[in-house]
Amino acid sequence: MATSWVNSAERIGSDLHLELTGPGGRRAALIRALREAVRSGRLAPGTRLPPYRSLAADLGVARNTVADAYAELVAEGWLTARQGSGTRVAMGVLRPAARVPRKAPPRARGPRHDLTQGTPDASSFPRTAWLASYRRALQQAPNEVFGPGDPAGRIELREALTEYLARARGVHTEPGRIVICSGFAHALRLLFGGGVLRGPLAVEAYGLGFHRDVLAAAGVRTVPLPLDEHGARVDRLGRERAVLLTPAHQFPTGGPLHAARRAAVIDWARARGGLVLEDDYDGEFRYDRKPVGAVQGLDPERVVHIGSVSKSLSPAVRLGWMVLPERYVDAVLAVKGDREAWASVLDQLGLADFFVSGAYDRHVRRMRQRYRGRRDRLVAALAEHAPHIEATGVAAGLHAVLRLPPGTEASAVKAAAWQGIALDGLAAFRHPDTDMAADDGLVVGYATPSEHAYGPALEALCRALPPP
Amino acid sequence: MATSWVNSAERIGSDLHLELTGPGGRRAALIRALREAVRSGRLAPGTRLPPYRSLAADLGVARNTVADAYAELVAEGWLTARQGSGTRVAMGVLRPAARVPRKAPPRARGPRHDLTQGTPDASSFPRTAWLASYRRALQQAPNEVFGPGDPAGRIELREALTEYLARARGVHTEPGRIVICSGFAHALRLLFGGGVLRGPLAVEAYGLGFHRDVLAAAGVRTVPLPLDEHGARVDRLGRERAVLLTPAHQFPTGGPLHAARRAAVIDWARARGGLVLEDDYDGEFRYDRKPVGAVQGLDPERVVHIGSVSKSLSPAVRLGWMVLPERYVDAVLAVKGDREAWASVLDQLGLADFFVSGAYDRHVRRMRQRYRGRRDRLVAALAEHAPHIEATGVAAGLHAVLRLPPGTEASAVKAAAWQGIALDGLAAFRHPDTDMAADDGLVVGYATPSEHAYGPALEALCRALPPP
Repeated sequence: MATSWVNSAERIGSDLHLELTGPGGRRAALIRALREAVRSGRLAPGTRLPPYRSLAADLGVARNTVADAYAELVAEGWLTARQGSGTRVAMGVLRPAARVPRKAPPRARGPRHDLTQGTPDASSFPRTAWLASYRRALQQAPNEVFGPGDPAGRIELREALTEYLARARGVHTEPGRIVICSGFAHALRLLFGGGVLRGPLAVEAYGLGFHRDVLAAAGVRTVPLPLDEHGARVDRLGRERAVLLTPAHQFPTGGPLHAARRAAVIDWARARGGLVLEDDYDGEFRYDRKPVGAVQGLDPERVVHIGSVSKSLSPAVRLGWMVLPERYVDAVLAVKGDREAWASVLDQLGLADFFVSGAYDRHVRRMRQRYRGRRDRLVAALAEHAPHIEATGVAAGLHAVLRLPPGTEASAVKAAAWQGIALDGLAAFRHPDTDMAADDGLVVGYATPSEHAYGPALEALCRALPPP
Repeated sequence: MATSWVNSAERIGSDLHLELTGPGGRRAALIRALREAVRSGRLAPGTRLPPYRSLAADLGVARNTVADAYAELVAEGWLTARQGSGTRVAMGVLRPAARVPRKAPPRARGPRHDLTQGTPDASSFPRTAWLASYRRALQQAPNEVFGPGDPAGRIELREALTEYLARARGVHTEPGRIVICSGFAHALRLLFGGGVLRGPLAVEAYGLGFHRDVLAAAGVRTVPLPLDEHGARVDRLGRERAVLLTPAHQFPTGGPLHAARRAAVIDWARARGGLVLEDDYDGEFRYDRKPVGAVQGLDPERVVHIGSVSKSLSPAVRLGWMVLPERYVDAVLAVKGDREAWASVLDQLGLADFFVSGAYDRHVRRMRQRYRGRRDRLVAALAEHAPHIEATGVAAGLHAVLRLPPGTEASAVKAAAWQGIALDGLAAFRHPDTDMAADDGLVVGYATPSEHAYGPALEALCRALPPP
């Protein structure tokens, strides 16, 4: 028995000696070293450990340090201590087979030109202004900010949004009817995942597949509405309980919902007790005239207005909002739970200051100008290099649709990939159940690249387009 | 017809004149004023509006300003314009009945002393150190931070956690097996809400009702394990597929899981293919000896280790983590979705710096000392004023349990309320299906008040306790 630990102890001593430094002092270092020795198999299950005194002398540490470390590891289940049998490595402790470390996926050679829709130019994030707002907000915040949160979201942000959305988007609300969330998908989950709303839900025949997936996961059947040059055919609404629309700028095909349709969908909601979900994903970005106000303003009790800063600022901030009809507020808060379980309270405070200080308006103005310039360059490049291809949906937003001759979309997407361009064709957004005729087109996210990358991306795009 | 607008126009003119200032210039102000006039009923549906020229002259603005405003409101559906019939207020536009503004709930007179468990002292948030980390992180961040996120969470944070959790909690992992989330409830939803794990799930007979609610909402049946002086009776585990434990400090009764039980639950997991969910909610706060390392270290392939900064820093940060066995990583990421849809990416960067810079260690050390002081004051106050009442679970954590004679808990909670104290009895944490004998006790969250509020809260508590 005596020899069983002598050899081990010698090894332990020499092994551990090397490692007996690091954060937390020698005791913590000894614990780490012993754990590692057991884990690696250098100390096999059942091995008797040297008495405190021997190991302490060997390592040049106090006897108590070793005693403490053994006691700790007994409490954790690595070692066992029995009267008369000394301290041993526990039998149950895993000696793992060569553990396969989870490697980072091989660094894929990404596309050289990113023209996928959906994200703002990541290099444009207003770091200095954001930091100034965040610091001001945190310094001025009352202590209760750091306690359990309000599931509706910070009142400062809801007040700022009430003012901003009225002014910029024609939304008519008050702070008590706004619920902060992490973005559009979170809003859908809160509305449908907890039973506040039920399907079937009418959606536009072209839209974001990610949203359809979120809805499907919540058990909601979606029914596609065909689109025409005036937007979604809301006259086709039937027994659905709600309809999800992108009225300011149909996603992804690009036009605004016609005024008559805006009125008609509100009429439908009133007559049928239906609800309009308004996805105002890029309502601030309209280039050739002022933005069209939100449908919500026409009847705040029939419309849930949903927005976020994912397009206007950055998806990294992960903040959005729902402006709710009075009668849904309590139900949505009940789904959210007693505490703010999702959105960063600190970022909410920062964003409130960002709105109130005017920094948000300044940033949107700057980005509107920048994206308008990119839109103009895209249109000009097409006019010069591919005059047979029409760009639609260019009056607003962060993307355009390049219309293609029927049957040519798939090969155009492939040609783009050959040129190192990442983008999607319209088919990627098509509702699987729609019977409307398929349109061929490329969805070009001209906001995505950084300023210096946009020119080369545009040139590559022109090379990829099909000849007349 | 002509008169129908003359009166209105006069009123419009005088009304609007007052309001034609504000953000966005006169055109935006005119649009807002007209919307409000329609909404309030001052302009009834069908009312013909004055010609551009008349209103422009009346208001002293350019004719184009009025024309633009009308066109905007036609596009938005507030007005209709027909050849020969002029511009009219749309028939469908709501004239709301006296809208009931959603009032803030009457300001309840809250308890004077907050001793509910679960939150750190909100006044202790390290604002300066946090701001320094956040600023440093944002200034140094590459641009891609502001684009679409990694659903696993920022690599900087996962690397920092790998190092920190190994050092402070004995967790054995690597960044590729960590998934960032918004906190413990979010972790449960990711694990059970998307079908990665299924019930039945064994839980401790006393625990957080909120967690049981989240699990119930995900359709997971929970089976209570009785507790004794060594913690959960893991020998009672049967056909459950997983068990949720608080090994470092049973919540809320307070003891650590005995070393033999730690080993036994790992044995069970190996023999039955089961999984241990380790809720390490306050593992850093142990006062009379160093923290007990995580069970995860005993077998990283059988334990999901879950932690957050909600107790150590603030629930307002809304960040937590799961350390997963290799085989669950992809499934959890699939449930999370293609994009990081929840946790603030900016706060993740800030927290990574907070760990790496040592600020987190410093903060935890400072709070450990502060809470130990409070724990000592609680024990001393009891010894002096209520020596018949034993405080248990005081070796660690942010709360203690004051044991009461059988049948006296409900009246003690009431007596506390009379003294203006908010706290819960043990009954609030009891699993409804457990058959273990009920214990009577008060759960005292001694970390919750600010420093200056703690003394008075303690005095009130002593007054509220039942006499011997």
